[in-house]
Formats: sequence, C-alpha cells, structure tokens
Amino acid sequence: MKLYGYFRSSTSYRLRIALELKGLPFDYVPVNLVKSEQKDATYTARNPFGSVPLLEADGRDRAQSMAQLEWLEEAHPQPPLLPGDLEQRFTARELAYAIATETHAVNNLPVLKYLKDPLGASQDQVDEWYRHWLARTFTPMEERLAQLGTGEFLFDTPSLFEVVLIPQLYNAHRFGLDFTPYPHISRIEAACLALPAFQRAHPDNQIDSPEYSGQEQTI
Amino acid sequence: MKLYGYFRSSTSYRLRIALELKGLPFDYVPVNLVKSEQKDATYTARNPFGSVPLLEADGRDRAQSMAQLEWLEEAHPQPPLLPGDLEQRFTARELAYAIATETHAVNNLPVLKYLKDPLGASQDQVDEWYRHWLARTFTPMEERLAQLGTGEFLFDTPSLFEVVLIPQLYNAHRFGLDFTPYPHISRIEAACLALPAFQRAHPDNQIDSPEYSGQEQTI
Repeated sequence: MKLYGYFRSSTSYRLRIALELKGLPFDYVPVNLVKSEQKDATYTARNPFGSVPLLEADGRDRAQSMAQLEWLEEAHPQPPLLPGDLEQRFTARELAYAIATETHAVNNLPVLKYLKDPLGASQDQVDEWYRHWLARTFTPMEERLAQLGTGEFLFDTPSLFEVVLIPQLYNAHRFGLDFTPYPHISRIEAACLALPAFQRAHPDNQIDSPEYSGQEQTI
Repeated sequence: MKLYGYFRSSTSYRLRIALELKGLPFDYVPVNLVKSEQKDATYTARNPFGSVPLLEADGRDRAQSMAQLEWLEEAHPQPPLLPGDLEQRFTARELAYAIATETHAVNNLPVLKYLKDPLGASQDQVDEWYRHWLARTFTPMEERLAQLGTGEFLFDTPSLFEVVLIPQLYNAHRFGLDFTPYPHISRIEAACLALPAFQRAHPDNQIDSPEYSGQEQTI
C-alpha cells in the first residue's frame, strides 16, 4: 500500500495509526500542502477531492479518511479497530464520528484559510474558533467517557475512536487548548502515546517533518 | 424505535430516509431547534452532544447520525444500504463521508450562526460560504460519478450515499445552488425523490413542518 499524506494533516495521521495498529506495511509519500501539491493535476487525476490522505491499495486510489478506515477494517479485519459486539461498535463510532464531523471538519485547513480570506478573521479569531469547536465536542465526549467507565482505552485495545482522537489532540495542543476539564481524554491520550504504533505514526516521525531525525522517537 | 429530530435538519432527514428504506417502523418526535429544545437539560441528559437526531433503539439513546446509520446497517441489514461487495461498499462510503465531513459539517446550523455572531458575517457572506463548500465537494463528486458510469442510483438501489446526498441537496436548493454543472447528481436526485420512502422522509411531510398537511405528498 501507498499512503499519500502530510505529516501534520490529522486525517493522514489517522491512517498512519490504523495501518500501524494493523501491522500493515505501507510506503508513505509526502504531499506538501503548504506548496498546494494536493491541487496538482497529476494528483487530482487520482483524487478529484484534492485532499490527503490518498490510499493506494488493492489497485485503487481511495479518498476520504473515514471511508478508508472503514474499508481497512473490512479488508484487513485483524487486529480489529471495531470490537465484535454490536453495541461496542456503535460506541466507538459515535465518538469517532463526533470528532470527524463536528470537530475536525470545521477546523480543517481549508476552512481556517477561508475564515481569513475572504472573511477577514484575525489569527486570534481563528484560534478562538478552533478552540470553540474542540470544546463543543470534547465536553460531551468527556461526559460519555465518564458514563462508560473507561480505563486506559475506550475498550481493551485502541479502537476507531482512538485512531481519530489522537490526531485531534495533537492539533488541540498546538492551538493551546486547556486540558484540565478532560481527564478521561487525557488518560486515553497518555496510554496511546506510550504505544510504538502511535509513536511511529506521530507527525514528528514522518520524513516530511522538520522534526524528523530518522530515528523512532519517544513522544 | 423513536427518532428525535427536526423536520429541516439534514441529519434527521438522513435517518428518516434510512428507516423508511429499511421498512422499520418508528415514532418521530420533533425537537424544535429554533426554540433550542436540543439544549434542554432533559434532552442533553440523554444526548450530551445536544444535537439531533437522537435515535432511541434497543434500549439505548444513540447520537451522531453517521454512527446511527452504520449501526442500523449492522443491526437491521435487510434491505442493505451498503452492497455486499467490498469495493462497492468503499465507493458508497467515500461519497457519503465526503458529504458528511466536507460539506454538511461545515454548513451545519451552529457553524452558520457562529459566522454571524461573533464573527460578524453578513447573510450574503453566509450564503456564499454555504455554496462554496457545496461546490467544493459536489464538483469532484460529479467527476467520481461520471467515472463510475452510474445510472439512476449509485448502484442498483439507494445506498448510504443517497441517504446522505438527498438531504444535502434539499439544503442546496434552499441556498440557491446552480445545479447545471451536476447532471449525475441531479439524475440521482430525481430517481430518489420518485420513491415513496424518500417522499415520506421529506421535511415537508413531517408533523413539525409548516408545510405538513397530514397527507403524503408527491414532491
């Protein structure tokens, strides 16, 4: 498989985590979003959405990270990202899709750019916007996690939820979110970041990151 | 089952279509978003996300429309919203999640409200924003549909894609999108709206709609 992505893109980061957790070998091909390489004609011919990540797998170019993750789970079910139990599967998806639709989608780079131009928002207003949508989802999510009585992870091992959560937290730290109100989320984050699969998938450990040292780092 | 929703909410509309296509009986309970009933304590105790739709099913309150739809498909697989073939399942999800994350999420009511207050955008700027994100996804989607050589539907019968597409088109019409560049999308829309399941699910045919006449209407 080939994963076309950008080190800091949280949707690319989702796919790297999932592939690492499943132990699937893949080539990582950087697409420089700052240079708008995702809008090059050679790239959009393969992915008309002009987005990362693009997953080349089983002879097909696949766009849209949530569809890629659901496909990965069906095509390579072991180890699972969704538990076998129907109710647990729902729980993992409810939380994962809350982040994907209500937080990430609204805070994605093209949206933040549009706020500045043409809407004329200042950097402070953009930062405020970012933290607003984070808190709006993290607050009820924290409540759901408390109700569920979660431990280190949502279930016994990292699921689709953690795959989507961890990249969002990486961004939340960059935007200076106060994590005091989110002890469950913080505990799950610490447990995930202690795992080699999450460390290998981390933005700092990608060849297109300025932090890249060629060595696996402890985060 | 009970579906708590709002006639004009496109995520509620998704669930109504899916339940109708699967022939599952349900009670529809209106939640008035204009009166912010989704923020009432009795409601948020059941759905901490404070959003519609809320699906009460199998003794559990379920939030997040995409997770609800994936659960419905697993708990009530017939008739299927996702084909049996792995590649077709991917195709349906790629297009459905493109709309759910890149179009709907950014154009959802709380986001439009935030643009006006605190960001101070005018109604014209909000309308422009709305059409911008519609076109940004519909253009590549139209290209994908052309590549796939679709007929009346994406596949033989309506799938997860049509379940998510039709409510987005309802909103696109309200915001005055020019449909000339989207012949494939328009053809699929016409085929869906001719079906009783889509007609029963239509906003105008809900008891909380001002258009409601108590009779099933031809759209």
